[in-house]
Amino acid sequence: MKPFTNLIPFEKAKRMLLDNIKPVEEWEIVSIEEAIGRVLTEDVVSPLNIPPFARAAEDGYAVIAEDTYSAGRYNPKTLKIVGEINTGEYKDVKITHGEAVQVSTGAIMPKNANAVVRVEDTEINDDELLVYRPVHPLFDVAPQGEDIKKGETVLKKGELLNPAKIGALAAMGIPKVRVYRKPRVGILPTGDELVKPGEKLEKGKIYDVNSYTLQAVTLMNGGIPKLYGYVPDDPKEIEKKLMEAMENDIIVFSGGSSVGERDLLIDVISKHGHILFHGVQIKPGKPTWCAKIGGKIVFGMPGFPTSCLSDAYQFLMPAIRKMAHLPPKKERIVKARMTRRITSTLGRMQFFTVRVKDGFAYPAYKTSGAITSLANSDGYIIIPTNADLVEKDDEVEVHLWGEQL
Amino acid sequence: MKPFTNLIPFEKAKRMLLDNIKPVEEWEIVSIEEAIGRVLTEDVVSPLNIPPFARAAEDGYAVIAEDTYSAGRYNPKTLKIVGEINTGEYKDVKITHGEAVQVSTGAIMPKNANAVVRVEDTEINDDELLVYRPVHPLFDVAPQGEDIKKGETVLKKGELLNPAKIGALAAMGIPKVRVYRKPRVGILPTGDELVKPGEKLEKGKIYDVNSYTLQAVTLMNGGIPKLYGYVPDDPKEIEKKLMEAMENDIIVFSGGSSVGERDLLIDVISKHGHILFHGVQIKPGKPTWCAKIGGKIVFGMPGFPTSCLSDAYQFLMPAIRKMAHLPPKKERIVKARMTRRITSTLGRMQFFTVRVKDGFAYPAYKTSGAITSLANSDGYIIIPTNADLVEKDDEVEVHLWGEQL
Repeated sequence: MKPFTNLIPFEKAKRMLLDNIKPVEEWEIVSIEEAIGRVLTEDVVSPLNIPPFARAAEDGYAVIAEDTYSAGRYNPKTLKIVGEINTGEYKDVKITHGEAVQVSTGAIMPKNANAVVRVEDTEINDDELLVYRPVHPLFDVAPQGEDIKKGETVLKKGELLNPAKIGALAAMGIPKVRVYRKPRVGILPTGDELVKPGEKLEKGKIYDVNSYTLQAVTLMNGGIPKLYGYVPDDPKEIEKKLMEAMENDIIVFSGGSSVGERDLLIDVISKHGHILFHGVQIKPGKPTWCAKIGGKIVFGMPGFPTSCLSDAYQFLMPAIRKMAHLPPKKERIVKARMTRRITSTLGRMQFFTVRVKDGFAYPAYKTSGAITSLANSDGYIIIPTNADLVEKDDEVEVHLWGEQL
Repeated sequence: MKPFTNLIPFEKAKRMLLDNIKPVEEWEIVSIEEAIGRVLTEDVVSPLNIPPFARAAEDGYAVIAEDTYSAGRYNPKTLKIVGEINTGEYKDVKITHGEAVQVSTGAIMPKNANAVVRVEDTEINDDELLVYRPVHPLFDVAPQGEDIKKGETVLKKGELLNPAKIGALAAMGIPKVRVYRKPRVGILPTGDELVKPGEKLEKGKIYDVNSYTLQAVTLMNGGIPKLYGYVPDDPKEIEKKLMEAMENDIIVFSGGSSVGERDLLIDVISKHGHILFHGVQIKPGKPTWCAKIGGKIVFGMPGFPTSCLSDAYQFLMPAIRKMAHLPPKKERIVKARMTRRITSTLGRMQFFTVRVKDGFAYPAYKTSGAITSLANSDGYIIIPTNADLVEKDDEVEVHLWGEQL
C-alpha cells in the first residue's frame, strides 16, 4: 500500500488544478437558435444601423415639427394628408411644409418629416388633418441608428450569450456566431464490479453510478461528456483506455475502490505524466489525485458514489467551467440551524450533506458509499479542517446544490 | 383604436395567468443519460438492496469479530487465512471461528464473517494472520441495504432530477425513467416588416428579434420552442397560423407594433377564445394581453424587442415553469447605488434595466424599441406604481438576469 505522503489542503489542490487548466481556444460556428449559454470568441460589430432608418415610434402623422408649433387645443393647425406609409413597406415619399403622411408605429419616415403627431392629438376633416398639439423635432421618431450604430461594437469576445444578447445578434441580422467549442470530458470508472444499469446484476457486482453523475455534472456546466465504459483492474487495459480517452480535454477516472486498484491506476498514470497532487485534506475525497498527461488534466476520483460526486462539484465543475470560458458557478448559500451534533475529523475539511427545512439543517449524510447521502440532500455544510464538531443548534451555512433550471 | 379599458396591476395579471396554467400531465420515457433537469412523474421504488450484499468497506480481512476481542498491540490474535475475495467477484466462501478471508474494499463478505480488520492492523506470518486490534461486529462492513432497502421509495413524483438523484437511479440499476414531457411553446411574431436574420433587408424592413429571444427564454426554462415564421397583418393569415400553432401548449404572439395591427390580432383571438386581460400597469409591456383558447394560454406581447423580452421574463417564464413542473426561478438580487436620477410614470410599475459595477447601478435603458436596453444590462430594478422617480444615490435592488449556466 502506498501511503498518502502529501495530503494537501483543499484550497491548494484546487488552485494547483485551476492553474493547470487552459481554457479551450478552438471555436465552432453555431446558429443563434442554438447559441444560448455559449461564449463568443470575437467582438461583434454591427453591420448596420438599428433601426436601419428613421421610423415612427407611434401611430400618427409624420410632419415637419415647425408646422405644428402654434397648434393648441382650441386652435388646430391644418395640414394636408398626402399619403400613408405602413410598417414594413417602402415608399419614396417626401413632404413639404403644410403636408402630413399617415404612419404606423415602425413605419419608415417620409423625407423631410422630423416628428410624429399621435393619432389622439388629431382629427380628420376630409383629406385635411387638424393637429391639436405642437410637437418638437424628433418627437415620437426613432432616428436611424438610435439603438445600434453601424460599426459599433455591440458584443465583446468572452461574453456569455443570454436571451437579450441573442436578440441583439438577431437585430443585427446575424444568423450565426463563433463560439468556443465545448470542452470534452472523458469519463472512465474503473473496477471489475461495475455493471451498466439495466443489465443483470450478478452476485458480487454493483451498478455503475459514477458514469452518470459525472456525465450530469459535465452537461450542467457546458461540457460534452463521453462515457468509456468500465476499465478493468489491469494495467494494460487501463493504459489502452487512457490512450483512447486522450481525445478529450479532460479525463476523469473514478475508483478503484481498493488500495490495490488505486495503486494500479496511479502507476499507469505516473508512467505517462506528472502527478500534481495525490491525497487531499477533505472528507469525502481524501484519495483524490490529479495528474497532467500531454498537457491535459487527468483526475482520479474515489469510487464511492458520494465521494466521487462531491469531488465532481469541488474539482471537476470549476475545471470544466474554466475550460468553457464560463464564470465560476455562483453558489446559493442559506443559513440554517443544525438539528443534531455532528462530529468530523480534525485535519480534514468535511463536506457534510444536509436537508434544509424551515430554517433547520438535518443531516443527510450516511456514508461515502451511499448515494442517498447526496440524493436526499439539499446541499452541504463545510466543517473546517481545524474543527471536529458542529454542535446542535449551531448556525451553519448551507451551500445549496441549486440544480434547478 | 380600442382603448385599454382595463389596465390591471402586474401582480393581478400574473396571478390570473398562473391560475389559468395547467401543468403538463403527459409523460415520456427518457434514459438517465438525458434525464438531467427533468421532473419525475412517479415515485421510484428500489427493486434491490444497495449495496446488494454485505460488503467490505476497507481493504483487509473478513473475520468473525468475536475472534479478535482480546487482540492488542502486543498480543496479536492468530487467524488462519482461508481464501481471498476480490471486488466484483463472487465466491461461495464460509468461515468458521479462527479463520479469515482477505477482502478488497467493495468485495462481498464471506458467510459468517461480520467484521473487517484493516490491513494496517495485521501482519502476515506464512498463511497465518496476526491481528493487532480488536474489531466489533459490523466494523468496516457495509451491510446489505445500508444505503437503500429493496422496496424503499427513494425518489418521489415531482422531484427534479439533479446529478445525485440520477446517481440514485443508476445505483438501483434503473436505466430509464418516466418524466413529464416538456411544454411546447409556439412563437408567432406578427408584422409585415419582419425579415429573418441572414436574409437581405429591404428598405422599410427590420430583422426579427422576438422569435429568437422568446425561443431562448423557452429553452432556458425547460420548454420546447417552435417558430412559426412571420404572421402577416391579415385576419385570415392570423387565423390560419393560430390554428396551426394550437399544437403547442402555449402560444405567444408578438406585435403588431401599430395599434391597427394589435386590433386585428385581438379581434381574431376574441373570436376563438376569451381574453383574460388586455393592458397591464407595467412599463414596458402596457399593451400585453393574455387569452384562453381551447384551454390553452395565448399571449400577445408587444412587438418592441425590449418590451417583448421583458414580458417573456415576467409572464412567459413563470408560465412555462409551471407547465413543466419546475419550481419558480429563484432570483438573484443585489443591492446597488443608483448613479443617476431616473424618472418613471405614476400608475405604471417600471422594469428599468441597469448595469452593475462595484456596487453602483448604471442606467442601461434606452427605449423599449432598443434591444441594447437589455443586451447591455445585468438586470433590472423595479420602480413601483406609486413612484415616479429614483434619486441619484438611492439604494436599489437589482434583479440579476442570472443567465449563467
